[in-house]
Amino acid sequence: MSGNIIGERFLLVTFGESHGRVVGAVLDGCPAGLALKEDDIQSELDLRRPGQSIVTTQRKEEDRVEIMSGVFNGRTTGAPIMMLIRNGDKDSRPYDAMVNSPRPGHADLVAKMKYGGFNDYRGGGRFSGRITASFVMGGAVARKLLHEVLGVEIVAYSLEIGGIRAEGFDLDTARKNRYKNEARAPTAEAADLMKKKIIEARGGGNSLGGIVECVVLNVPPGLGEPVFASLDSDLARMALSIPAVKGVEFGSGFASARLKGTENNDEYYFQGDKIMTKTNNAGGILGGLSSGMPIAYRVAFKPASSVASKQTTVDLASRKEVELVVPGRHDPTVVPRAVPVVEDATALVLADHAIRAGMIPPVLRGP
Amino acid sequence: MSGNIIGERFLLVTFGESHGRVVGAVLDGCPAGLALKEDDIQSELDLRRPGQSIVTTQRKEEDRVEIMSGVFNGRTTGAPIMMLIRNGDKDSRPYDAMVNSPRPGHADLVAKMKYGGFNDYRGGGRFSGRITASFVMGGAVARKLLHEVLGVEIVAYSLEIGGIRAEGFDLDTARKNRYKNEARAPTAEAADLMKKKIIEARGGGNSLGGIVECVVLNVPPGLGEPVFASLDSDLARMALSIPAVKGVEFGSGFASARLKGTENNDEYYFQGDKIMTKTNNAGGILGGLSSGMPIAYRVAFKPASSVASKQTTVDLASRKEVELVVPGRHDPTVVPRAVPVVEDATALVLADHAIRAGMIPPVLRGP
Amino acid sequence: MSGNIIGERFLLVTFGESHGRVVGAVLDGCPAGLALKEDDIQSELDLRRPGQSIVTTQRKEEDRVEIMSGVFNGRTTGAPIMMLIRNGDKDSRPYDAMVNSPRPGHADLVAKMKYGGFNDYRGGGRFSGRITASFVMGGAVARKLLHEVLGVEIVAYSLEIGGIRAEGFDLDTARKNRYKNEARAPTAEAADLMKKKIIEARGGGNSLGGIVECVVLNVPPGLGEPVFASLDSDLARMALSIPAVKGVEFGSGFASARLKGTENNDEYYFQGDKIMTKTNNAGGILGGLSSGMPIAYRVAFKPASSVASKQTTVDLASRKEVELVVPGRHDPTVVPRAVPVVEDATALVLADHAIRAGMIPPVLRGP
Amino acid sequence: MSGNIIGERFLLVTFGESHGRVVGAVLDGCPAGLALKEDDIQSELDLRRPGQSIVTTQRKEEDRVEIMSGVFNGRTTGAPIMMLIRNGDKDSRPYDAMVNSPRPGHADLVAKMKYGGFNDYRGGGRFSGRITASFVMGGAVARKLLHEVLGVEIVAYSLEIGGIRAEGFDLDTARKNRYKNEARAPTAEAADLMKKKIIEARGGGNSLGGIVECVVLNVPPGLGEPVFASLDSDLARMALSIPAVKGVEFGSGFASARLKGTENNDEYYFQGDKIMTKTNNAGGILGGLSSGMPIAYRVAFKPASSVASKQTTVDLASRKEVELVVPGRHDPTVVPRAVPVVEDATALVLADHAIRAGMIPPVLRGP
Repeated sequence: MSGNIIGERFLLVTFGESHGRVVGAVLDGCPAGLALKEDDIQSELDLRRPGQSIVTTQRKEEDRVEIMSGVFNGRTTGAPIMMLIRNGDKDSRPYDAMVNSPRPGHADLVAKMKYGGFNDYRGGGRFSGRITASFVMGGAVARKLLHEVLGVEIVAYSLEIGGIRAEGFDLDTARKNRYKNEARAPTAEAADLMKKKIIEARGGGNSLGGIVECVVLNVPPGLGEPVFASLDSDLARMALSIPAVKGVEFGSGFASARLKGTENNDEYYFQGDKIMTKTNNAGGILGGLSSGMPIAYRVAFKPASSVASKQTTVDLASRKEVELVVPGRHDPTVVPRAVPVVEDATALVLADHAIRAGMIPPVLRGP
Repeated sequence: MSGNIIGERFLLVTFGESHGRVVGAVLDGCPAGLALKEDDIQSELDLRRPGQSIVTTQRKEEDRVEIMSGVFNGRTTGAPIMMLIRNGDKDSRPYDAMVNSPRPGHADLVAKMKYGGFNDYRGGGRFSGRITASFVMGGAVARKLLHEVLGVEIVAYSLEIGGIRAEGFDLDTARKNRYKNEARAPTAEAADLMKKKIIEARGGGNSLGGIVECVVLNVPPGLGEPVFASLDSDLARMALSIPAVKGVEFGSGFASARLKGTENNDEYYFQGDKIMTKTNNAGGILGGLSSGMPIAYRVAFKPASSVASKQTTVDLASRKEVELVVPGRHDPTVVPRAVPVVEDATALVLADHAIRAGMIPPVLRGP
Repeated sequence: MSGNIIGERFLLVTFGESHGRVVGAVLDGCPAGLALKEDDIQSELDLRRPGQSIVTTQRKEEDRVEIMSGVFNGRTTGAPIMMLIRNGDKDSRPYDAMVNSPRPGHADLVAKMKYGGFNDYRGGGRFSGRITASFVMGGAVARKLLHEVLGVEIVAYSLEIGGIRAEGFDLDTARKNRYKNEARAPTAEAADLMKKKIIEARGGGNSLGGIVECVVLNVPPGLGEPVFASLDSDLARMALSIPAVKGVEFGSGFASARLKGTENNDEYYFQGDKIMTKTNNAGGILGGLSSGMPIAYRVAFKPASSVASKQTTVDLASRKEVELVVPGRHDPTVVPRAVPVVEDATALVLADHAIRAGMIPPVLRGP
Repeated sequence: MSGNIIGERFLLVTFGESHGRVVGAVLDGCPAGLALKEDDIQSELDLRRPGQSIVTTQRKEEDRVEIMSGVFNGRTTGAPIMMLIRNGDKDSRPYDAMVNSPRPGHADLVAKMKYGGFNDYRGGGRFSGRITASFVMGGAVARKLLHEVLGVEIVAYSLEIGGIRAEGFDLDTARKNRYKNEARAPTAEAADLMKKKIIEARGGGNSLGGIVECVVLNVPPGLGEPVFASLDSDLARMALSIPAVKGVEFGSGFASARLKGTENNDEYYFQGDKIMTKTNNAGGILGGLSSGMPIAYRVAFKPASSVASKQTTVDLASRKEVELVVPGRHDPTVVPRAVPVVEDATALVLADHAIRAGMIPPVLRGP
């Protein structure tokens, strides 16, 4: 398989570039019979769109999704679902000007080396964050499928942006608030503080990183295939496929490295007939399999690489060091826009594993 | 593909259980012509063996590797290489006794659910850390291949155990020291402190977690395939496939979430003819591709789940909560033993990508 | 992977339905730097279009290909190439009328069973021969790649249609003639006879089968991966993926079953410095590897399943046997249109294997 | 994936060489709970052993299978099943002597080119027919699984050897007779004639080809995944992976190329509540999906390449043409031994597709 494809029984094939004609995906392996219309996907894509005040990008993205195959009479058919959004007209001249000046933090230089200079460099081309629109297209279908068949619910939010960490909230609060504020924070308080930080960073020609936390409810036990397709392996792989991600941790994660076994082990008890654990340091995954407890993991995003400040780089023509100011207006942080991407990426992995485990049938019967 | 297989052009197929007849691997896709003997693999397996004083396990593992196919006249042939170690006689009675009492922190309960009780539960069966011996078998070949063809060098060490973090060392120090102490620490000082902590934890019937750091030198630029087979995606997937791993981060990792773009971006400069970056917050990976700078990443291990202390669990027969003392002697930490596993797992991913990128030919010519 | 994807390093992902919005493909793994424009693909698609006199179908297919991604400044970039053709307006009412009357020889009934009735049945939907347009899109790129890098040439033709078998021709004749006649026959004489047979069959409300022979020149030795990705395994798999194919044979094929070993073995000799075989009963493939001799294989096509004559089928609503006349005008044979499809399908397999064997580099340098 | 692996959810990984230490397989994806013992596999392997009078090979193969993993308490566990047979001591000297004289009809020359001379050439190494023992190991498990869960029955036989074609028999006759005669013929009469032909060929230092026919009963409708994992695609791929196979055809196969549509289409009718077809020219496969009718296909084997007669080849050292007599005693035909291989290879494909279609659950519950 290729790097542009992920999944085994529920596969996403991505295509498209930032300044090309389209960005899109082929979703293959979706069971027949799922009710699906473009609005189901559009509503997810809209969440990924930049906010109005804090995260102004230089382009207005309409991103109207079109379903081109695999749906008939409002239902999936079992055939591959091709979806795309068209890229509007963009000004690629700044990128032509920078073709010999690789932007620090971006893939410009290494992409040029790998592809012999034939890569589409405009807007980062294939390495643009815009590619995550295809994660959302596929993920929107995955979420609908998981929700309708298994009742799975996925909630992500900005746990931390620019050092501001949301505290003292529960999942209900996060679920209710996260899409009501531009920072995608779990609480209004954190949102206000994050927003200030973001505006400040933008003012200083700089950018911020952060952490997205993702919690998944109602995942049946037993998803995941040891050894190399364990659920955490596949979620980690997916997370690191999102541009700007530099780390991932499950449950107590890196903090567990400083805990003792008796502190970190989750002891079992009965809640009525159901076996639960008193704590969830495992983040809902044991031995690479979903345990039935909520899945909880965190994804670290570096600060956006495009900044308005002056930086040093090399000029590939003159073979000299030069100063570079990346033109245009930039997202001061990708974290808020990444929240729905993490949710949808999570859905893609879970749907694939639920199908592999036989928990979602090849044909959905029902209304 | 299945969860027991990883890689695309250089594949590892694992098999075996903790208390079954064997643990082993089929390594497929190794170029023809690589000089290979059992000692090349045995020396790596020996590093994985528990130390004498700090990490006493209940069993003496001889682990003599046998190469069963794919090598002829001392060279690889291009055919699959099957390798195995035999499991000696083990006392499985404690596991029979615990069959209705899932151990906290282990996969016992969820494995039983997933496999309908047919799984081999003895010693954790397929979920045992012993499975990582197959990572080492394949990884030893991968390292040899990477070293001979590309000069790649992989150095991992225990950066942190039980809260003791090694400080103030450089890579040369780590390379020289790590296999000279039982803690696999980069410095003798850290090793002494870690060893004390480990002995203390063992005395208290407890266990410790830690962090393994892995640095890779001489990786050519351009390894990795966007989007989902990016180098960090595949390294993360591999890392999370190692039992007890709960997190992974690249370069500045989770810390980058609190940096500004101007702080985290690695600026370019010329070192003679070579383009370098002044810092390496990217950990040698940009846009999912190796950048040519050293790859640097960290893997978080939870404390070993088997502890001598009393824990609460459920009895699946009586449907009541019970107290459990896991019998036998336990590794108080898996971190030192995980160091060569992380190195070899890294080699597996890099060798696969180097072959995919055409940087290792299908036939090695030479002495 | 899914059934809609083929290849390992050079992959074709197909999508689309006969009466849906589009039919298309994502071609992934194409090296960067190949000059490619829509005309390169259009010219292949045009060959697949039905002839004017002998093979009149009910619809006029324009089939203008659009390249939507993966090409920049007239060259492939290394990113996935998405291509599509739009389906014009079609009258689907006849298919609605037949929804309970499965057409003999078609997939109607079994598709309905497999997909719970959610499949797009119009025009055969995903099972239509129209799907082979995506083979042609990808295959056109594969051919160009194989030709430019390795000088590979692929020549297929209608060896036999409706019992008329072309005789007494050599490859040069076939190469020169095949696209000059509507039957895609290797000689004008055979073409005339085949054409008469086809017109006669159409007149009788019937259809004809035939055999396509495919010869490939300049394939380097060593393509193919034992055991299950041998070159003949993969060509056979590909051939049977073309609708209406019922058999495939290599070299002396089924006839070899009646030969003696001494008759069928191809003896070696030197032609100058080059090792050749005196005969080519192996069809250019030994042990699943290309031998360096021309690859030669034949593909058997059944008569087109849609005929104007009355047939018996079942009515799924009344659970009674009924008579069915499939409405519309039908291709009396698919063989002539299959000739370029076989060529392009062959190219897809060979390009994948040439890349796997390291014979086509990831970046093409040159003019 | 690699050429040594086949299947998607039920995978066979093969390893081993003719004169190496072992030949074996890892079978991955077998559901948990299947009763399995070594005898289940041994009985299939025994059928593959050469007969006593007609097919004398130079070596006595004991071929005792050992299951090394994946089975616990007599049931499969869901973990990979590693199985192997050990190669006894063999005299490899004849092969050392022939190392510069490639045998016509064998892979000797092209394997040497592909693997740079590092391949294990003894006994054909990885290209030996002995590799099919691993097909049988995996196929024996597949057959048991298919039979127990779905009632599938697979019957193959030598339809034709050396031009002697069995006629006038029904499936019951074939099922009863095929393993009662050394030719694996469906009738005693055909067996006698075939046996005479084989003895005659052996006497003349020659070899014979033939055709194996395979019929599968009780295959549920809907197996197969369009386009490229259609059931006939995957069966064809598998068939061509068996050494010496040069063709495959389904249902009316090559003969359908000379039929008219009205002759070849299988009309539907009701047999009670069940929909059947009056004929089965489709061979039980429509649109790449199993139709519910018996699957019927034929596989053409070339005459065995090793013959006692003198042949011309080239000497790679002197670069001259030389005469070669392949030493040792040879199978005068592989067809009888191929009969169980075809059955087991068929089972592998069907089991994989039945699991993909959700028709075999991940855990077998029952006695």
